[in-house]
Amino acid sequence: MAKVTLNQDLKREREKGTFDIEELTNLLDGGRIKTQERRELVEFFSKDPAFKDEVPPEYLSYVDRYEESVRKSCLMFYKINEWMDHKKAGGSVDLYQALLGGMLGSAVLKDGMPFALHYVMFVPTLMGQGTMDQQAYWIGRAWNCSIMGTYAQTELGHGTFIRGLETTATYDPTTEEFVLNSPTLTSYKWWPGGLGHTANYAIVLAQLYTKGVCYGIHPFIVQLRDEETHLPLKGIKIGEIGCKLGMNGTNQGFLGFDKVRIPRDYMLMKNSQVHADGTYVKSASDKLTYGTMIFVRVALIRGVAASYLAKAVTVATRYSAVRHQSELIPGEGEPIIMEYLTQQYKLLPNIAASIGMMFASQWLWDMYNNVTSELEQGDIERLPELHAISCCLKAVSTADAARGIEECRKACGGHGYMTCSSFPITYGMVTAAETYEGENTVLLLQTARYLLKAYSMAKGGNPMPPTVKYLSQSNPMRVPWSNTVTSLIGAYRQVAHGLISETYEKVERLVASGTPSELAANHHSIQLVQCAEAHCRLFLVEKYFEAVKIAKVSQQLRKVLNELSMLYGVYYLLKDLGLFLSYSNVRVSDVATIEEWQNSLLAALRPNAVSIVDSFDISDEILSSPLGAYDGNVYQRLMDEAMKSPLNKQPVNASFEKYLKPFLKSNM
Amino acid sequence: MAKVTLNQDLKREREKGTFDIEELTNLLDGGRIKTQERRELVEFFSKDPAFKDEVPPEYLSYVDRYEESVRKSCLMFYKINEWMDHKKAGGSVDLYQALLGGMLGSAVLKDGMPFALHYVMFVPTLMGQGTMDQQAYWIGRAWNCSIMGTYAQTELGHGTFIRGLETTATYDPTTEEFVLNSPTLTSYKWWPGGLGHTANYAIVLAQLYTKGVCYGIHPFIVQLRDEETHLPLKGIKIGEIGCKLGMNGTNQGFLGFDKVRIPRDYMLMKNSQVHADGTYVKSASDKLTYGTMIFVRVALIRGVAASYLAKAVTVATRYSAVRHQSELIPGEGEPIIMEYLTQQYKLLPNIAASIGMMFASQWLWDMYNNVTSELEQGDIERLPELHAISCCLKAVSTADAARGIEECRKACGGHGYMTCSSFPITYGMVTAAETYEGENTVLLLQTARYLLKAYSMAKGGNPMPPTVKYLSQSNPMRVPWSNTVTSLIGAYRQVAHGLISETYEKVERLVASGTPSELAANHHSIQLVQCAEAHCRLFLVEKYFEAVKIAKVSQQLRKVLNELSMLYGVYYLLKDLGLFLSYSNVRVSDVATIEEWQNSLLAALRPNAVSIVDSFDISDEILSSPLGAYDGNVYQRLMDEAMKSPLNKQPVNASFEKYLKPFLKSNM
Repeated sequence: MAKVTLNQDLKREREKGTFDIEELTNLLDGGRIKTQERRELVEFFSKDPAFKDEVPPEYLSYVDRYEESVRKSCLMFYKINEWMDHKKAGGSVDLYQALLGGMLGSAVLKDGMPFALHYVMFVPTLMGQGTMDQQAYWIGRAWNCSIMGTYAQTELGHGTFIRGLETTATYDPTTEEFVLNSPTLTSYKWWPGGLGHTANYAIVLAQLYTKGVCYGIHPFIVQLRDEETHLPLKGIKIGEIGCKLGMNGTNQGFLGFDKVRIPRDYMLMKNSQVHADGTYVKSASDKLTYGTMIFVRVALIRGVAASYLAKAVTVATRYSAVRHQSELIPGEGEPIIMEYLTQQYKLLPNIAASIGMMFASQWLWDMYNNVTSELEQGDIERLPELHAISCCLKAVSTADAARGIEECRKACGGHGYMTCSSFPITYGMVTAAETYEGENTVLLLQTARYLLKAYSMAKGGNPMPPTVKYLSQSNPMRVPWSNTVTSLIGAYRQVAHGLISETYEKVERLVASGTPSELAANHHSIQLVQCAEAHCRLFLVEKYFEAVKIAKVSQQLRKVLNELSMLYGVYYLLKDLGLFLSYSNVRVSDVATIEEWQNSLLAALRPNAVSIVDSFDISDEILSSPLGAYDGNVYQRLMDEAMKSPLNKQPVNASFEKYLKPFLKSNM
Repeated sequence: MAKVTLNQDLKREREKGTFDIEELTNLLDGGRIKTQERRELVEFFSKDPAFKDEVPPEYLSYVDRYEESVRKSCLMFYKINEWMDHKKAGGSVDLYQALLGGMLGSAVLKDGMPFALHYVMFVPTLMGQGTMDQQAYWIGRAWNCSIMGTYAQTELGHGTFIRGLETTATYDPTTEEFVLNSPTLTSYKWWPGGLGHTANYAIVLAQLYTKGVCYGIHPFIVQLRDEETHLPLKGIKIGEIGCKLGMNGTNQGFLGFDKVRIPRDYMLMKNSQVHADGTYVKSASDKLTYGTMIFVRVALIRGVAASYLAKAVTVATRYSAVRHQSELIPGEGEPIIMEYLTQQYKLLPNIAASIGMMFASQWLWDMYNNVTSELEQGDIERLPELHAISCCLKAVSTADAARGIEECRKACGGHGYMTCSSFPITYGMVTAAETYEGENTVLLLQTARYLLKAYSMAKGGNPMPPTVKYLSQSNPMRVPWSNTVTSLIGAYRQVAHGLISETYEKVERLVASGTPSELAANHHSIQLVQCAEAHCRLFLVEKYFEAVKIAKVSQQLRKVLNELSMLYGVYYLLKDLGLFLSYSNVRVSDVATIEEWQNSLLAALRPNAVSIVDSFDISDEILSSPLGAYDGNVYQRLMDEAMKSPLNKQPVNASFEKYLKPFLKSNM
């Protein structure tokens, strides 16, 4: 591409900004030093020409794409080593996770990588669930990548409902071995990343049988492939599951066992044990293994939902500052599409939402760390609360992000539909997270179950944990609405409180009339989902305002953050207006005022739209989109991307002589 | 695959059906004979083994996929000829459109076909806009496929706003030629199907200049490639635009002109003419060319939105009758997931919506035909109304369908994410239609502009066209709500009426205070979009009830149709509850009753869910999804699909020796 100068429209938009971009970048990164570290890492990895694709992966065959992703994964891991030498730092799970799960990894391997689960799940599970002896034996080999592992839990027939898993591990005391078996087709493991053709070891979750008794799901280390030939071992039926909507770089696989024997000490025994004679010793606390699941969900909120939404709004916002279309005032030419209120309405609430998710996830992260240290001291009191809030926040943030990404894509018109825009692959990544690590509807119902219990406790006058304290407070309904943060937070609280209490009473009435409680809950499950969503939205709104309040920032930035947090609150109020008219002090006569508030917030934020997304500081390499590049040179970049299509390497495709010409000449 | 018997759960679901499936099939097809004809066509085309893919296209390289799609397209066109010989019928545009646009085409070429625009746009435009002489010259060659055409309108810089197109056609009276030129990069044509490497002719839309005056957009026939060598002609810069979210079989292209000369009579001159001396003669009516655009939108509602949503709910509903998960009542085992109310809530409203769209599109089709015959007699009175309703119905139905397909996909958990499930490709097809043929937000604003005008006319006491007659009727607000169809329709009418009148007044107030009307409209454009949606939803609800009322069907079927139409109305009422609490006689105290109504409709319809989707009568070849096959043999089919992945043809991929083994042995 010829050297280009900055697009003038985009330049003008940048000049409108009223705050210091770097200040917001630092705030979102968690400090100036963190920003610096992140930039160094991005520089080191994403600018390496070895990672550049000559032909974008979407043009390759599926097999070639896989081979390329193995090549690049190896390269990336070598480079991680180089980085650690350079920084004189030891490897940390954090670093690997930043590289593998976050956006940096996606810059190198856009569609996921086959090695990811090795560091994201295999090593952490060894560390969390292996005995000291087991850790000594396995972690060294895993850490220097002499073996490549994955984590095999989900089966063809069972996902979120883990108790239903069918793979069995039956202890044979005569040989001191476990026999792994797949009794049915539906018991085949299905989905684990890297399982198809990459990993040679796996942690396998299976129903443990010993002395004829089933003790439920336990983790086992299983060797899958020969370390020299990579051929599947005897009794291992393995392959990959095929092409998917997205994440096609992950080499997700299936795995069946035909009576595969492993030594007794391949069961991870930190929590529960099977002795040589087959005696089962139960874990001190079942809840201890809960930790990893919650950890992954918390990580998803920032690492997937917030980050990828930030990426999408960056692209759509910059594009909206470059694209001219239609006429707003006849005869005055075509304005940039950002001038249209409907366009601002597609962009700004998603900008606000991505920042809100970052704040909420930071809070949750702190809570997670607190609860984890309490857990280590045997205190499990706050675990149910943490579980409840992490379930609904995972569900709501992944759903918001997925919807937001599609809004951003469509806000870019046809060009958003191009693969090179990066929207399709971004959506593929995020919508997957609506289903994996707990299907969203199931998670919301789990939160709702907690909320009903909490409400019942609140009614009983019990002391309440922080995130549900509002359930024990009475809500003054008769305060008239005003366009203030106080009114806004109050209204969200009233909605969550009102919806939960009403649904609680409905369920109780059904139970009182003789319906089993599970069926009563099922009968009201549409409302229960709403309860969990309302609880989560309240949490997001409150944490947003709190974070802005405590942030140590300049007046200029505080003003912008205030506007963003209010827009977030107002936007979802109007989206869920029915609930607010039902349960809060918002009256029909207030709606026009609130709509004007929304309009004025959109107008106030609009001049800062480009500056805010600039402050997300996502490099062109990570954005990987002609529509969103920093320089705004949209059309030339689109044309350059088109020219990468291998079909454009020749003026006439071979199919002309083979099929088309005979057809056209056939005089049908 | 081994011979399988019907899945027993699915069989039990089918036995619950209370109506005659064939009766509903006939109703939706438009009669018994139409059903028969459709089945014959499906049998003839989709069961032909020549169309079977040995390796599914998603595993091929992009170039191979294109070559395969040309091969299959040729095959398909030969087969169309065979069909016409067999049926002793002449070719009809209808037949081609059924094959190319509808689901049958997608069974053969799942991801779109490069020849489609030849019959969908090229031939019809020749017929609609060519003079008799031009038709005589071109149509024969086009009809027997001696030439292959496309339709080039959209440019890199302009889509829905057609007036902004930049390609120029300047008349040169000295040689009696037009000179086509692309003055800028953004003036390159971008998106036309088949343009990349397939078509050798195109109808090109360009700004017509003659005698120094610009007369706006006109259609020209341009030869793109040599008929013998397929090489691009001099001055033609052509290629394909690259990989997209979906529709990757369509070979969409770009096209630039470097002063390309075409004879004067290559301008299609049925409506406007340029004489040899350069004199421009204006079309009798600009509105005449409107017709094709409306035609395509009307066709989209049934052919894309309703059909593909029907396909998606068929897959998700059958899967929900086979998949067992979790426990509803502890100890009673895992029920099929259809037992969960939240699952019914994802499926049944989408089933109802797809049927509702079919009814509405039928009504619109009739209206389109009436208005077209009036047009031919010079009567353009109902054109604005037709335009307004087709705009919003295109927008709302494609958006509903796209959202519904994603709901269905996610309702199938992880397995919906597999490419073989057919959800990803179905979504790709439908979400494209949210943008093409008029971007949805732009279309809704066009409808809204009409509605404001109509409301102003209604206020003036003028007679109103049928679809907006309600604007001149006063709405009795004080009738208490009851769970009846009358209440339901009344409430929808109140919402549309209330929202439109209120928004009208708001815009008028701004204008009265000195704001230019365009800026006033922009200021209230979020509400204007809501107005168009509310108008459209009212139309959909009314036409649904009307269609059920006039349908000549058995009592059993009528009961089911009544339930479906009521569910449709209740579902969207609760979705948009804020509007109903604001503008209709629904009170907060009614909401619980309406929710119970929804629950009882879900319960009533649930036993018929599988039977209703069976009545859509979509063959396994067209469904093309292991999750939705008629026999319900989900898991074996998923495994069979996985085994088609070329990666599974060898136990060890070449990347092991090349990259992975050296890496694992490197002792990092």
